[in-house]
Amino acid sequence: MSEPKKVAVIMGSDSDFPVVSAAVKKLKSFGVPAEAHVISAHRTPAEAVAFASSAERNGFGVIIAAAGMAAHLAGVLAACTTLPVIGIPMKSAALEGLDALLATVQMPSGIPVATVAVNGADNAAILAVEMLALSDEELAGKLKEMKKQLAEKVAAKDLLICAEAEKL
Amino acid sequence: MSEPKKVAVIMGSDSDFPVVSAAVKKLKSFGVPAEAHVISAHRTPAEAVAFASSAERNGFGVIIAAAGMAAHLAGVLAACTTLPVIGIPMKSAALEGLDALLATVQMPSGIPVATVAVNGADNAAILAVEMLALSDEELAGKLKEMKKQLAEKVAAKDLLICAEAEKL
Amino acid sequence: MSEPKKVAVIMGSDSDFPVVSAAVKKLKSFGVPAEAHVISAHRTPAEAVAFASSAERNGFGVIIAAAGMAAHLAGVLAACTTLPVIGIPMKSAALEGLDALLATVQMPSGIPVATVAVNGADNAAILAVEMLALSDEELAGKLKEMKKQLAEKVAAKDLLICAEAEKL
Amino acid sequence: MSEPKKVAVIMGSDSDFPVVSAAVKKLKSFGVPAEAHVISAHRTPAEAVAFASSAERNGFGVIIAAAGMAAHLAGVLAACTTLPVIGIPMKSAALEGLDALLATVQMPSGIPVATVAVNGADNAAILAVEMLALSDEELAGKLKEMKKQLAEKVAAKDLLICAEAEKL
Amino acid sequence: MSEPKKVAVIMGSDSDFPVVSAAVKKLKSFGVPAEAHVISAHRTPAEAVAFASSAERNGFGVIIAAAGMAAHLAGVLAACTTLPVIGIPMKSAALEGLDALLATVQMPSGIPVATVAVNGADNAAILAVEMLALSDEELAGKLKEMKKQLAEKVAAKDLLICAEAEKL
Amino acid sequence: MSEPKKVAVIMGSDSDFPVVSAAVKKLKSFGVPAEAHVISAHRTPAEAVAFASSAERNGFGVIIAAAGMAAHLAGVLAACTTLPVIGIPMKSAALEGLDALLATVQMPSGIPVATVAVNGADNAAILAVEMLALSDEELAGKLKEMKKQLAEKVAAKDLLICAEAEKL
Amino acid sequence: MSEPKKVAVIMGSDSDFPVVSAAVKKLKSFGVPAEAHVISAHRTPAEAVAFASSAERNGFGVIIAAAGMAAHLAGVLAACTTLPVIGIPMKSAALEGLDALLATVQMPSGIPVATVAVNGADNAAILAVEMLALSDEELAGKLKEMKKQLAEKVAAKDLLICAEAEKL
Amino acid sequence: MSEPKKVAVIMGSDSDFPVVSAAVKKLKSFGVPAEAHVISAHRTPAEAVAFASSAERNGFGVIIAAAGMAAHLAGVLAACTTLPVIGIPMKSAALEGLDALLATVQMPSGIPVATVAVNGADNAAILAVEMLALSDEELAGKLKEMKKQLAEKVAAKDLLICAEAEKL
Repeated sequence: MSEPKKVAVIMGSDSDFPVVSAAVKKLKSFGVPAEAHVISAHRTPAEAVAFASSAERNGFGVIIAAAGMAAHLAGVLAACTTLPVIGIPMKSAALEGLDALLATVQMPSGIPVATVAVNGADNAAILAVEMLALSDEELAGKLKEMKKQLAEKVAAKDLLICAEAEKL
Repeated sequence: MSEPKKVAVIMGSDSDFPVVSAAVKKLKSFGVPAEAHVISAHRTPAEAVAFASSAERNGFGVIIAAAGMAAHLAGVLAACTTLPVIGIPMKSAALEGLDALLATVQMPSGIPVATVAVNGADNAAILAVEMLALSDEELAGKLKEMKKQLAEKVAAKDLLICAEAEKL
Repeated sequence: MSEPKKVAVIMGSDSDFPVVSAAVKKLKSFGVPAEAHVISAHRTPAEAVAFASSAERNGFGVIIAAAGMAAHLAGVLAACTTLPVIGIPMKSAALEGLDALLATVQMPSGIPVATVAVNGADNAAILAVEMLALSDEELAGKLKEMKKQLAEKVAAKDLLICAEAEKL
Repeated sequence: MSEPKKVAVIMGSDSDFPVVSAAVKKLKSFGVPAEAHVISAHRTPAEAVAFASSAERNGFGVIIAAAGMAAHLAGVLAACTTLPVIGIPMKSAALEGLDALLATVQMPSGIPVATVAVNGADNAAILAVEMLALSDEELAGKLKEMKKQLAEKVAAKDLLICAEAEKL
Repeated sequence: MSEPKKVAVIMGSDSDFPVVSAAVKKLKSFGVPAEAHVISAHRTPAEAVAFASSAERNGFGVIIAAAGMAAHLAGVLAACTTLPVIGIPMKSAALEGLDALLATVQMPSGIPVATVAVNGADNAAILAVEMLALSDEELAGKLKEMKKQLAEKVAAKDLLICAEAEKL
Repeated sequence: MSEPKKVAVIMGSDSDFPVVSAAVKKLKSFGVPAEAHVISAHRTPAEAVAFASSAERNGFGVIIAAAGMAAHLAGVLAACTTLPVIGIPMKSAALEGLDALLATVQMPSGIPVATVAVNGADNAAILAVEMLALSDEELAGKLKEMKKQLAEKVAAKDLLICAEAEKL
Repeated sequence: MSEPKKVAVIMGSDSDFPVVSAAVKKLKSFGVPAEAHVISAHRTPAEAVAFASSAERNGFGVIIAAAGMAAHLAGVLAACTTLPVIGIPMKSAALEGLDALLATVQMPSGIPVATVAVNGADNAAILAVEMLALSDEELAGKLKEMKKQLAEKVAAKDLLICAEAEKL
Repeated sequence: MSEPKKVAVIMGSDSDFPVVSAAVKKLKSFGVPAEAHVISAHRTPAEAVAFASSAERNGFGVIIAAAGMAAHLAGVLAACTTLPVIGIPMKSAALEGLDALLATVQMPSGIPVATVAVNGADNAAILAVEMLALSDEELAGKLKEMKKQLAEKVAAKDLLICAEAEKL
């Protein structure tokens, strides 16, 4: 299989977009086709069920779901598909994101959600790419390249900080 | 309307029954017809949607939903009905029930879940009766009677403890 | 019964009004008569007891109570009435609203408070309308209409975000 | 004033007695007259209001109030008296006592509750004695004696542990 | 005894003064002589021990101690006196004041600290006045007057909010 | 590709095996070759780095890592591979698993760990199978079958509980 | 300097000894002279101050302090010495050790406490040895040997678990 | 040994520098040679391992490691050296630093990290100096001098606040 499957980036509210857009950008930077949607487990449950139920035959390989508060989105999508679902707990006005984190990660036996850090849109995308790369050597190569660049960026900053600290 | 509507008592897992059965018993003690079901937002999402969507026309007035961990059950049911949904967060093996509490109560604007205390099956039933009693004077009378009995029981225990404390 | 009962919206402090006013507005948007009051469980306990004790005969069907910190208001009102009491835990200067949430939701057996999310004034109102709608078909119809509109609004935002994401 | 005022030890439920009885015993060990009662802020609110309102003229100097979960008891009593009220947050089946602690200590401006540790019945009694000792030199003397004995007990245990540790 | 004893208001850092000054002001509004000091359990432990050890004979009746983070100040002072010590947990840059709250309230058996809410300087002062009022009828009268005024202020705000809500 | 890649199940301590063994069993029930190892990020860091660095060329497709307390294992493995790494936070003697959960899920940008519930060994295995099934239709079929069986089991329990509840 | 300084192992209560004794044993296994004491920051503050103030001239190099609840012991000792102080937060009956952890680690600027895990007596001892080993090559060698043995033990368990897992 | 060993100040990201630079400055104020580096346990794991493994022979005596979120840096460094490692948990965008605190302090038996307060860069440096001062009398003298100055600064502020409070 030479062409990666699509990744769906679902958010529970359009107010999540400023954070979640990072996932879309990151996916595109890997050349992975991404589609963003606003679907609410609570306000549009039928759409949530319909989207997840048909995601596989619609060409999606992975679903990323971002939601805050009593974040049910990832869990509801995971309930309706056997594709891997990645959950991004969103920080909202109270409780520092702990509510969304626990509501996303503490899934009961049988229906996992691959949870990343609070507001961790970037990592959700990378995790999706890692999954797709299992059967896509080109993608796997890009991940290794990214990892190398991450390391180089840290090394560059090391020099900078090292020098700045000497002046203290 | 002289006859109260039914109350559905839904639990996410049969392992919740020892706690949740208290809700069924309490409802029956008020003469309120109750039906208990095991429906999982994650393992049987279609049943959850179907149950909630048809609950009103099937004669239910209130839905009580008990679930632990990333407790999505109450929220998913609430998403599919305009009947009031009462959520009981269940304590499970880790995190002292805080996960279920936050996952149940922190619902986004538009889809409320009337949340009671962790493992608060008794109160879920009483809350359901209070809702039904809004249009059922007989039920309202029974609630007042229960409240009187609660007070009398405390008063009786007061005498007991008062005497026991004197002997210390 | 064709005319809905009144809903009382009680807040512990006038500083809660900017958040809590959303509940009043939402109730009015449903045509439900609402009355707002500042009553403190701690500073005006007699008023709290008096209000709750007479609420039913004064034409109220549901009481919404908003309070922060060691939020006792909803519990104290619930102790003095058999009407359903809805609690809104208010976020205050420290602890991210966790104090008010636990102080509102963790009610002992016998005296439930239907708790909504931290600062969830909107949902408190909707929950009150759901309760009143149990015996008011017109209200029930309005709730279904609101639910439809919520879904349509999400659908509209989906199109928007979907398009915006393509441009990333 | 040579004779200390009475201390009321109020608990929300008789199930608190095994922990709370330590407060009664400690008070008696200081020769302070203590009276224990079961009064619930939620199940017997009228009794709570009545007790606190008349406590001063009934010869009480300090009120100790123990309650778990959404512990409102101390706050409700404090609302109805200007006597100092000491709150003991009780640990219950979930949340490790954090609910009762926050519900007891986070009182709004104007109505303080002197909060001690979760299940800290012993310290509640000592704190009450410290308050009464402000105008009772004999009691003040007993507190100093107790403090000396506490230190001596630690010193005795120090010798023991010191020796035991050498054998390790 | 017609003249109230002095109250010491100790803070761990001068940066606490903007919050803690409310306690001093409140005490003075009751005519209670108050003295404010910066004493650190960690930076000036000898001063802390010396101050507490001599507080009683220096005319103090109550000690208020405000500290943030691993707030040891109240506990250290309480260890060195049998006067009642009131602790104010201060919110600092991280953890929302939970660190100071637990470090202040969770005192071991034998050495109580009367803990008030996070940043609750106002209530610390009122609690101190309540303690002194146990043997000072004039102070007791002022407390009752304050309580009446608190209630009147709430009643006045009730009218205001009630009217404002009608316009919504 | 007809044969699934291997899944590594790494645990930080052999004391985790009673919980983690469920992951191995579940993987084998899907016919997915699994290898279990005890490798500690702290006690055998070189082995952790070596294992992760060579995992891909040694035929592994997914790594599951279980660790408690300051759970670094999943993160350290993820740092050394571009294979997807699934983290199981283990509950240990204190803090109810919150430490391991936060230490596993809150990964910085660039290095995701797909985190499942505290002690969620079962779900870690299912998530791994979902990832492998992206390019293995037989596995995908087995997941759908498992999902069907999960639903049937709930339905069977529904009948049971429904009947039991009627007898209450 | 060929002979290591002594390490003091102070605990707030003799009930901590079953956990804390592990620190004494570990120190002795390194040949580091250790002395155990029960000294309470709250019940024997003078002893705490005296011990810490004289610790350096009494031949101690490091102080380990274990305490639970509002754990002040480590902080009070650190306030009175410039020797490094290591704090062990002890888990007690409520709050899962979070109280002791925060009360130990959140020290204000100027007075650090080197905090280890809840109940982490073993690590407190190793940390003390690491400090002493900075000027003691023999000790440094023993630490390296211990580290090697830790790794070997994990490797041995790896073989065991690996084999056991194959049989699942 | 008359010249102190070097202290390494490692941070996981250059964004930590504004906080962490305080550690470098403090070390230099004691005349302790300090070197700052950006090394990520996740993005440059090989560098982390290499740095820690060679730190001792490169003249370092203590390693300070600052990281946020699932802070693994201190633990990974500690895994690869027997030098004492001091961890600074950094507060980041969510969860108030609780994630980094638990991920740093809750180390498993065998590999301690000497943890200081959230963002406690200052104290990390002082703790490092205390360790080095165990075999450096000049440094020990400077610590005592610093402690005296800390106390004097508090005393000066005491006078100021004392006077300011009188004017309230």
